[in-house]
Amino acid sequence: MKKYSEMTREELLLEKEAVLKRYSEKKSLGLKLDISRGKPCPEQLALSLPMLDLVNSETENFKCENGFDIRNYGVIEGIPECRRLFGEILDAPAENVIVTGNSSLNLFYDLIAHAMCHGIPGGNSPWCECKERKLLCPAPGYDRHFAVGELFGFELITVPMNSDGPDMDLVEELIKDENVKGIVCVPKYSNPQGISYSPEVVERFAKLSPAAPDFRIFWDNAYVVHHLDFDGEKDEVPSLLRLAKENGNEDMVYMLGSTSKVTFPTAGLAAVASSERNTADFKRTLSFQNIGPDKINQMRHVLFFKNLEGVLKHMKKQAEIIRPKFETVLSVLKTELSGTRIAQWNSPKGGYFVSAELLEGTAKRTVALCKEAGLVLTGAGAVYPYGKDPADSILRIAPTFAPVSELPDAMEIFCLSAKLAAIEKLLG
Amino acid sequence: MKKYSEMTREELLLEKEAVLKRYSEKKSLGLKLDISRGKPCPEQLALSLPMLDLVNSETENFKCENGFDIRNYGVIEGIPECRRLFGEILDAPAENVIVTGNSSLNLFYDLIAHAMCHGIPGGNSPWCECKERKLLCPAPGYDRHFAVGELFGFELITVPMNSDGPDMDLVEELIKDENVKGIVCVPKYSNPQGISYSPEVVERFAKLSPAAPDFRIFWDNAYVVHHLDFDGEKDEVPSLLRLAKENGNEDMVYMLGSTSKVTFPTAGLAAVASSERNTADFKRTLSFQNIGPDKINQMRHVLFFKNLEGVLKHMKKQAEIIRPKFETVLSVLKTELSGTRIAQWNSPKGGYFVSAELLEGTAKRTVALCKEAGLVLTGAGAVYPYGKDPADSILRIAPTFAPVSELPDAMEIFCLSAKLAAIEKLLG
Repeated sequence: MKKYSEMTREELLLEKEAVLKRYSEKKSLGLKLDISRGKPCPEQLALSLPMLDLVNSETENFKCENGFDIRNYGVIEGIPECRRLFGEILDAPAENVIVTGNSSLNLFYDLIAHAMCHGIPGGNSPWCECKERKLLCPAPGYDRHFAVGELFGFELITVPMNSDGPDMDLVEELIKDENVKGIVCVPKYSNPQGISYSPEVVERFAKLSPAAPDFRIFWDNAYVVHHLDFDGEKDEVPSLLRLAKENGNEDMVYMLGSTSKVTFPTAGLAAVASSERNTADFKRTLSFQNIGPDKINQMRHVLFFKNLEGVLKHMKKQAEIIRPKFETVLSVLKTELSGTRIAQWNSPKGGYFVSAELLEGTAKRTVALCKEAGLVLTGAGAVYPYGKDPADSILRIAPTFAPVSELPDAMEIFCLSAKLAAIEKLLG
Repeated sequence: MKKYSEMTREELLLEKEAVLKRYSEKKSLGLKLDISRGKPCPEQLALSLPMLDLVNSETENFKCENGFDIRNYGVIEGIPECRRLFGEILDAPAENVIVTGNSSLNLFYDLIAHAMCHGIPGGNSPWCECKERKLLCPAPGYDRHFAVGELFGFELITVPMNSDGPDMDLVEELIKDENVKGIVCVPKYSNPQGISYSPEVVERFAKLSPAAPDFRIFWDNAYVVHHLDFDGEKDEVPSLLRLAKENGNEDMVYMLGSTSKVTFPTAGLAAVASSERNTADFKRTLSFQNIGPDKINQMRHVLFFKNLEGVLKHMKKQAEIIRPKFETVLSVLKTELSGTRIAQWNSPKGGYFVSAELLEGTAKRTVALCKEAGLVLTGAGAVYPYGKDPADSILRIAPTFAPVSELPDAMEIFCLSAKLAAIEKLLG
């Protein structure tokens, strides 16, 4: 296949005819396909079902390690055994972990709301009093992170992603502005590019010297145990909290994690690991907000996993289910698009997404063409602040939820749409 | 027994000697008793254990009524069958109900945080921009409500409680101040007095005409199904949302409820019923905050209770467990204190507390004496804003958690301490 960019007008018209024919055939099938959101599939969820049986009416002892009844009030910071489990997962001391709620997104939201309303250690006033507040957003990134920042009135500043993490030269420059209050990151198997930050990048994060005394790194380690091939290549990212502490910077860090894509989305757990000061500060606010998290659900998770090894064994089973889906996505992308040179994509070693960079100015059109043919994609631009991809080129593919049998059709529609959009663009 | 106030100095000294003797005997037993917090006892919790078995690894269908998988993301507002259940409990249309989280306290906190950060329907700006913001606090009331208001920087304005609810003349006067943003109430079996608001009081709430266009009534119906004698006298309070709607005032109302003291504190559910506009507004914010509540836990509750009738049957069983505790408390109070005329107390028909009004200026001293003798009470003043009881006279007794066998000792210590404190006061 000749590169599209090197085709003559006549060649492009011929190619268009051929692609359009295939696209129309697919469209005529009236398919309803969806690769838009990073959701576990029912087979993944089924792996966690035995967990639901572990605390039941026959359970004889409802006491957690510190003697509290898990069915009653109390233990704001989470039960000790569950804090230890998340300490292992997030690579942080158990005493610096608070377990609560059900998603790292919710914790990110709550921490922002907390800083907005009450202020946080190091700061002189609640963030709501900083009218020009700004949030750094490595992008492509997670649309819901950006949406939270926008909702709370932050100016969202895009920081380009390199292959080893955000552009740290730029980050180091931007944080000289005292209105820059934070940065929100997915450091491992990033959403959507599957990029894991290099040790050098993490080291630079740990050494940041921001102008704002209450600057925070929201380190959403949502995919910390989400390898795709447990027997093959896996990424590991150093503990930012530990490195920051070595640099006297531990108050700068909130490391977040959850079991949303480990057990059950929305019926799982979430945790934040932070410095001693931040932990005490957040716990204090939580103690006004409620009288303890769902400790029964925490105990279910502890009994099910026991420790990090148990979590990894479980995640390996999930990988067996979703790896073939990623392989299908990558295989169709290669077959259909590699010759055309109208697209690049990553081959992630973990996480939930494949990110495709299409010919500039064709992402929106590709989404529209997919939709016409019955395939729902994440909206073009979603991976950038304000939903605006400056080059209109990045699309996110979420292959986990769809049955593997549907993915060849879905990806063929995706590729044909991308080709059509590229040809239209090149024809002008 | 002669009234203490009519005793001569000599009589008081003799009485002191007698009381002190009994007090010292009790103290020497080295008891460890606690009637400080409104917690269900293990026997109450045990009634809900079968609920834990209802969603398990053998469950064949994980779909809720609207077709969503309860194990996966989605359904921000709660599953339809659970919204209907809470609609019945709170006496509100199911479509106006959002089910989320695990306590009405947490929902109160979240709604305040939401109004603080984003503003709410009717308002011109987020509450954080109102520097002189005020919250009306009927008192005696719930210490944690007041603490949330204080945390968010509200000036707390005490509104005295009458026997049928807050002093509505004063409320109607105070809301002429546009900085008064809300009032927080426990309308049924109030904490701590067990007062239920009369239909007339509720009607006046429904007709309030506050200066602040975004004024809100936080109607924490925490004890809505918590009768003490299901075969005897029960209080009922009209639906404020319905009455407010009849007056075109429905945006003024957030009705809150939970299963904290129905199933499991912290592992239960909470719900807010409000107007169409408020519901849409809060749902929008929730959609930024998370990707759905714990729907598995919602389904457990739905399968366990089925409907309001199921809830009431369950609560009747709880009443059988805790009514004897209330009877013990009231019986000891009567035996020990009724002749002295140094105290008054209520005989609640529901809820979790007995409230005792002691001789002015003796509540703190009574708490201290109780503590010395091994009995933990809620701190004196806790039932007032800022923890300050102007008369230093109200104490809250929470009899549900302690074993019934411990209550005679606990209440004897309580009464002896109250007597000693009164005698000391009268002796000057």
